[in-house]
Amino acid sequence: MELKKFNGIEFTDGGVCAAKGFRANGVQCGLTHEGALPAKGKNDLAMIAADCECTAAAVYTTNKVKGAPILVTKEHLRNGTARAVIVNSVNANTCNPDGVEKANKMCELTAQALGISADDVIVASTGVIGQVLPIEPIAAGMPALAEGLTYDGNPRAVQAIMTTDTMPKEIAVKFTLGGKTCTLGGMLKGSGMIHPNMATTLTFLTTDAAISAELLQRALSDVVKVTLNRVSVDGDTSTNDMVCVMASGLAENTPVTKENEDFEAFENALYAIMLNLARMMARDGEGATKLVECAVSGAKDELTAEIVAKSVITSSLFKSMIFGEDANAGRIYCAIGYADADVDISKVDFDIASKGGRIALGRRGCVEKFSEEEAKKVLSEEEILVDIRLGEGAGNAVAWGCDLTYDYVKINGDYRS
Amino acid sequence: MELKKFNGIEFTDGGVCAAKGFRANGVQCGLTHEGALPAKGKNDLAMIAADCECTAAAVYTTNKVKGAPILVTKEHLRNGTARAVIVNSVNANTCNPDGVEKANKMCELTAQALGISADDVIVASTGVIGQVLPIEPIAAGMPALAEGLTYDGNPRAVQAIMTTDTMPKEIAVKFTLGGKTCTLGGMLKGSGMIHPNMATTLTFLTTDAAISAELLQRALSDVVKVTLNRVSVDGDTSTNDMVCVMASGLAENTPVTKENEDFEAFENALYAIMLNLARMMARDGEGATKLVECAVSGAKDELTAEIVAKSVITSSLFKSMIFGEDANAGRIYCAIGYADADVDISKVDFDIASKGGRIALGRRGCVEKFSEEEAKKVLSEEEILVDIRLGEGAGNAVAWGCDLTYDYVKINGDYRS
Repeated sequence: MELKKFNGIEFTDGGVCAAKGFRANGVQCGLTHEGALPAKGKNDLAMIAADCECTAAAVYTTNKVKGAPILVTKEHLRNGTARAVIVNSVNANTCNPDGVEKANKMCELTAQALGISADDVIVASTGVIGQVLPIEPIAAGMPALAEGLTYDGNPRAVQAIMTTDTMPKEIAVKFTLGGKTCTLGGMLKGSGMIHPNMATTLTFLTTDAAISAELLQRALSDVVKVTLNRVSVDGDTSTNDMVCVMASGLAENTPVTKENEDFEAFENALYAIMLNLARMMARDGEGATKLVECAVSGAKDELTAEIVAKSVITSSLFKSMIFGEDANAGRIYCAIGYADADVDISKVDFDIASKGGRIALGRRGCVEKFSEEEAKKVLSEEEILVDIRLGEGAGNAVAWGCDLTYDYVKINGDYRS
Repeated sequence: MELKKFNGIEFTDGGVCAAKGFRANGVQCGLTHEGALPAKGKNDLAMIAADCECTAAAVYTTNKVKGAPILVTKEHLRNGTARAVIVNSVNANTCNPDGVEKANKMCELTAQALGISADDVIVASTGVIGQVLPIEPIAAGMPALAEGLTYDGNPRAVQAIMTTDTMPKEIAVKFTLGGKTCTLGGMLKGSGMIHPNMATTLTFLTTDAAISAELLQRALSDVVKVTLNRVSVDGDTSTNDMVCVMASGLAENTPVTKENEDFEAFENALYAIMLNLARMMARDGEGATKLVECAVSGAKDELTAEIVAKSVITSSLFKSMIFGEDANAGRIYCAIGYADADVDISKVDFDIASKGGRIALGRRGCVEKFSEEEAKKVLSEEEILVDIRLGEGAGNAVAWGCDLTYDYVKINGDYRS
């Protein structure tokens, strides 16, 4: 998948270790759940440690069932500072009787290992819901995890947060704040239980920019709204979603403390990161073979555009037809029509496009005649754009999704994930 | 699938022909769509004809893209009377430039063949969206369709409305109004593009009870709300959904003109019909192997119960786990948690049950320990109940769904339906 590029922003390597002042590591401590064995050789516990106190911010799932780690992290980030992240996969530590106790224990173990305070630790878990989290493997794995922290440990960390992900997802960018080069990087896990309008998934970001906790929170909330919150894999909102960011300030820029040009530049860099992570997540949706981008323009406002875009990428019939590479245009009109938004179908045009070409499929509420052969050429590509024009105003929005495949059913039917 | 029984209501045969005064027929007129051949020997055009003027009522899809037949039928039912139904499958006559003209033409052809007025005809279409409907095969098939009408023609009619349905779905009941035996029967088609909160699918009902158009409409609207509107197959709301009912009055009961005991008895009979049709539709959802019934009780009101029940049966992760016969209880809590309803998760209990037994899966927001073997026994049955108790009040609701299977993807990826 090609990265979307932005002016003044340069991609770089290193994920959560790209910014100055962050070490990371991942180990296999041997977590498992009932009836399952530990995955062979796969890391299941990751740590990110900052060299100094950081400002920090986070956005959380809107699910009323909240994983215990979410509750503990919220409490720890109340003061807007953090120094470390501890995160496990395999077990979500949610819907069990002692989740908060275990999440607190994970923070204490991390604090001991790093010589910091437990309330400076961000804790997260992902995996099976509803099982007791065994703390022993985590406690046993902690010394090696902390000792192995390095400034290039991001590949070990990103592996530890993967569940049904088929590829690690990390990214980093360089940009300039007041003449100083800053770096922002991160890692993300998908790939099921993902639906717009909530924090969506686990994402850990680090930057060396100096920025106040308040503005860090504002930038994160703004950007999540138009990136991760516009991705849908399966319409299911996870209980453990969280996006968090730590800022070390080691780039030595003049701290960003108001909504000035520097704040905008920081937000742009964050947008570049999050937009690409959103695309990676959709492309690696459970069982997915294609990335779908739905761009809606000409809406009376942005919200209308967003609702229509999400309705299309969420439709099971639309997702199945993308998998089948069948240009069944009526299904796109159908999904636009049942979106809870003010749309005059008789004004709606849409095309599908990809590296394979562009086809006019819908015009003024009717399906156009098109060449099945050309449509097949467009749909056989791996990245498909659905370009919808509502013909009413200037509102626009983009949403990302994927196709619905046999493998989605297989992954979620056969495996307790 | 066993029928759900009700006191004072007796099941009978005959579908839309069970009530006095209704003939039906179905033929293959040879409809097709671009790139496809007519299905081998499958009827594609059905007619129901009443012996006398009937009171009539209907409920329609809430999709803003409305099939042309919906617009024409709405107009024809404005006066609350009808004498016939004409319906085709294969082509939905929607999102094309001349749909209304063609729907009107179908009514005119029917009126001519039966010697009635065109505005006494209910017209419906189901099939591929966005193609021009060829009127010639319909015109050519009309004489044989009308001549072949019989008082036992329902099996030919029900076959003509099937699309991806794997079995015909029809039902009829006998009940008593003021000492007179009345009959109410009907047929329904599924089986994709089906989602709650709209009329859902094509359903044609006939009765010989005498009832005013106004009360017929009230009964239909009431009952659809708690039956068909609580079924979800795939979350997609069709453009052509319609449920209609014609009442001939030939049972010679004192006409039902106010909300008295007779009205209640009629509504009960309608509920018995529609509840069973809803269950049949969910069971025959595209690719489905299991019927899922989700009963929510203890909600603070009925709406809360309904929202929670629909959230569970609509969840792709829940549906996949039902297919995989995996008691992944966390997914049920997850779907309850993201329902847009006022729920205190720490009070929520739930069980799964079937002919294979009953298992306590969730208690007070936590997943219970359970025997995997017993869970497998429960989930290996064809009808699964999820029994959720919210522990707050007296509101309750039931919703119906099915599992998500490889075949759903196959049907909707490989075939332009």
